[in-house]
Amino acid sequence: MSLAQDRYPELQQYRKSIDNIDAALVFLLAERFKITKEVGYYKREHNLPPGDPEREERQIARLRELAASAGLDPEFSGKFLQFITREVIRHHEQIRGDG
Amino acid sequence: MSLAQDRYPELQQYRKSIDNIDAALVFLLAERFKITKEVGYYKREHNLPPGDPEREERQIARLRELAASAGLDPEFSGKFLQFITREVIRHHEQIRGDG
Repeated sequence: MSLAQDRYPELQQYRKSIDNIDAALVFLLAERFKITKEVGYYKREHNLPPGDPEREERQIARLRELAASAGLDPEFSGKFLQFITREVIRHHEQIRGDG
Repeated sequence: MSLAQDRYPELQQYRKSIDNIDAALVFLLAERFKITKEVGYYKREHNLPPGDPEREERQIARLRELAASAGLDPEFSGKFLQFITREVIRHHEQIRGDG
């Protein structure tokens, strides 16, 4: 039981919304990594390079636009994509390692 | 036009799904930061400390459980929360700086 619970009911309400959004983010991320793993297997099968710089540039530009329209810092959307992509690369390296 | 478009239609399908999920992630993150900014103003108003270690521990534990149930690496869910929290702290510092 933290300091927030009783004395700051508004804070408690904010936190419930944050927790709901975090659950949604986790489930979406799980789904995204399921797809990028499929992409990893597909690329291995077709002997495609793990990265595609053109695709990545388009993704960053698109996310910046979406971020701006949503009121999210466009810089942050770029950092976010990089953060996710590092994990995707780690998965793809595992997939290549699997032979 | 990348190498994928014509020769690898399955890859193109995967990428469309990834793009849809990324749009959903961006809009959810925008909503999450709207709430954490409100929390920043609220904490400033009530003279509450910016961090709440107990709350953060509960968040990490909960996200690990959700991640496991979703098939997402629980380690990754912790890193993800840290990544988001760094941005939240940056916003809160700005809010405090605003006086």
